[in-house]
Amino acid sequence: MSPTADPLRRQLHLNAFLMSTGHHEASWRLPESDPRANTDIEHYKNLARIAERGTFDSLFLADGPVLWGDVAQRPAGAIEPLTLLTVLGTVTEHIGLIATASTSYNSPYNLARRFASLDHVSAGRAGWNIVTTAGPAAARNFGLEDSPDHGERYARAAEFTEVALKLWDSWEDDVYVGDKEEGIWGDDAKIHPPRYRGRFLSVEGALNIPRSPQGYPLLVQAGSSEDGKDFAARYAEAVFTAQQTLEEAQGFYTDLKARTKDAGRDPDGIKILPGIVPVIGSTEAEAREREAELEDRITYRHGQRRLSELLNLPVESLALDARLPKDLPPPTQINGAQSRYELVVELAHRENLTVRELIARLGGGRGHRTFTGTPEQVADAIEDWFTQGAADGFNVMPPVLPSGLELFVDHVVPILRDRGLFRTEYVPGLTLRERYGLPRPANQYLSLTTANA
Amino acid sequence: MSPTADPLRRQLHLNAFLMSTGHHEASWRLPESDPRANTDIEHYKNLARIAERGTFDSLFLADGPVLWGDVAQRPAGAIEPLTLLTVLGTVTEHIGLIATASTSYNSPYNLARRFASLDHVSAGRAGWNIVTTAGPAAARNFGLEDSPDHGERYARAAEFTEVALKLWDSWEDDVYVGDKEEGIWGDDAKIHPPRYRGRFLSVEGALNIPRSPQGYPLLVQAGSSEDGKDFAARYAEAVFTAQQTLEEAQGFYTDLKARTKDAGRDPDGIKILPGIVPVIGSTEAEAREREAELEDRITYRHGQRRLSELLNLPVESLALDARLPKDLPPPTQINGAQSRYELVVELAHRENLTVRELIARLGGGRGHRTFTGTPEQVADAIEDWFTQGAADGFNVMPPVLPSGLELFVDHVVPILRDRGLFRTEYVPGLTLRERYGLPRPANQYLSLTTANA
Repeated sequence: MSPTADPLRRQLHLNAFLMSTGHHEASWRLPESDPRANTDIEHYKNLARIAERGTFDSLFLADGPVLWGDVAQRPAGAIEPLTLLTVLGTVTEHIGLIATASTSYNSPYNLARRFASLDHVSAGRAGWNIVTTAGPAAARNFGLEDSPDHGERYARAAEFTEVALKLWDSWEDDVYVGDKEEGIWGDDAKIHPPRYRGRFLSVEGALNIPRSPQGYPLLVQAGSSEDGKDFAARYAEAVFTAQQTLEEAQGFYTDLKARTKDAGRDPDGIKILPGIVPVIGSTEAEAREREAELEDRITYRHGQRRLSELLNLPVESLALDARLPKDLPPPTQINGAQSRYELVVELAHRENLTVRELIARLGGGRGHRTFTGTPEQVADAIEDWFTQGAADGFNVMPPVLPSGLELFVDHVVPILRDRGLFRTEYVPGLTLRERYGLPRPANQYLSLTTANA
Repeated sequence: MSPTADPLRRQLHLNAFLMSTGHHEASWRLPESDPRANTDIEHYKNLARIAERGTFDSLFLADGPVLWGDVAQRPAGAIEPLTLLTVLGTVTEHIGLIATASTSYNSPYNLARRFASLDHVSAGRAGWNIVTTAGPAAARNFGLEDSPDHGERYARAAEFTEVALKLWDSWEDDVYVGDKEEGIWGDDAKIHPPRYRGRFLSVEGALNIPRSPQGYPLLVQAGSSEDGKDFAARYAEAVFTAQQTLEEAQGFYTDLKARTKDAGRDPDGIKILPGIVPVIGSTEAEAREREAELEDRITYRHGQRRLSELLNLPVESLALDARLPKDLPPPTQINGAQSRYELVVELAHRENLTVRELIARLGGGRGHRTFTGTPEQVADAIEDWFTQGAADGFNVMPPVLPSGLELFVDHVVPILRDRGLFRTEYVPGLTLRERYGLPRPANQYLSLTTANA
């Protein structure tokens, strides 16, 4: 008989990172895949239902306000994440809905409204993955010549988050009076306009939506640069990260928990979820075969071009069977996605990969940790990191969708449940934040009132 | 036996303008009303289903990115319209989904994406009511001290719409190739970055979502100022308007159809839909009683304050039993909502209303035409305007929700159907634009290619 989950035992948090036909860039070329899945709402509804069947904590969508690369390369174009998650919320009941949105290319008033709205219509299941968006292509879609530099982007992100928090708290929870006799709908004394004036942003008035079920969406962060880690320590409640080895992951985990404590917060209040791309087979050989089937379909000339953009090197300097140049600049001199740059360069050097091998690894899960094996081995890999101070859970990135998510839910999740590491069912009525084990935040204006009383 | 709708006979277009507990500002105080309906998704799902049962063309939501007035006055706060309509699209199959969004306080890239996304997930049912948003309160939520002046707002609106149209056309319909063997997903020659540089806006790159089922959302406009009418003549496919008398409505109709023709467009390509607030009773006396029941619940001090803001006059100059000052400035000297200002001043002067009477009229439907009577009389009022060159249909604004919409659907719609003026069922599979009798727009870049060939 399998043990039931021990309520006192620390539990895994699992997030399903959805991505068209899968996280492996060649997944769309498999016979089983629908290359137009990215704009097919039924595909995403199916994924959401599978993830909810697997009692995942949340669904997650990445985003950037730009058409990346060429449409020749791989499935391009997608439904805007908050719109898509709004639909997915209507076909699910429990699972969280985490959307990426940029602080560089949104207004806090509009974005705070949209997340509060999603939180209302989903009964407290919204999450915001806060990103600053690197690169000139996005900037040029918003009237700028280039992206602001890395530090400036994070400075704006901090202001943006501060303003958003004020907007979300601009209604106390009990504004509503509802006195029909006297004709008094609400209490204006419980409305708090932010009246914020910062370096980047000024927002005067209160939000035009009541405080939402969670107070505000779960705050998520995904960059691992120095700026990114400091930002996460200050604001994030969950962190998606991309370490490749146990040692790296333990280092990141210890570092970020310490920074969170230094920022005056409870280290348990930030959940660290490394990405994992599980290539699953019923035997190890079958899993390897699946991996090979995907690798065979990688288009290396596309990979070369993307690598040349990331590393800021001419494509001619990246011969497929050579290794990366040794004299690459340190990540802090890069104005793009610093943590991704660092990850790729370290991966290539550590494992002494050729450009071809590096492209295959990146194509497999965009630099996240790929793990190929049986359900038992995948469960072991998850348990190892979870019990050895490297993770509070995982951002699960199936290489192929929907099949990779189905395999995980039907074969890995039951093992994790049997080991007492993962919930067997949802506790009804929990918000996303509560499912992550975090309390509903107090209203900052209410705390002031109490402190002054 | 009732006649079936004659397919050759011109048909009414009916839009359901949804508004919390109803368009009468005192509706929330009725015993039947839920004052928190505005953030209750079940309330809105119910309304959407009733409107679809009545084979309405579309649902419509007004919007401004600001918390208007005091929360003491009447229900405040709402779910952001595109989010709300995304949910309503999941519980309906045919009805259009029209959201208001501001050209002054959005970026074209983000907004074009969101409307294209709604159009994709709703299979071609999205519409955009293009507004410029008057007033300093909204401006201050976006880092400005005051709203740009009326002409500048409309100049930006025109640029915004031009850019949005380019973004929606930035993918030809047949970008997708899907060659799994060769690894070619799409054809980059069919992607057209806008590369737009205007006075107000610059947008470089193509949208990151394929062209949507309708090509782009139905374009709707609602302002009746000179700038507004010129804008509508250029871009709008449907116009929500607010004339009070048949003569005014005929004048507006004739004027706007002529301007549309002058702009080089087919006058039938713009549908003019005056607002109507139908207060319905099974007898005339019952309808009047309903009207009185609502009027009794108006809070006049709130009305005085709102009127003072609109007219830019001190509240002390608006004694309830006096009339408006005679020497008010012309609307062109007003930097706020010019057409609304003109409507209110004209209404007061034409009918020689006291401030109290004016407030009651405005409270009844925010200046739109209120019509109180039996279902037969409401149907007559609709048919009169429709057959006498004043309207292509109506923007139906029930004073109380859901009951006012139910009464209209169950008692007025059957009469209009019996008269052969309104559809008895939906033609399956039509997009919103097709339901309005308009063709799917050609892609502007494709037309260029064809013209050059």
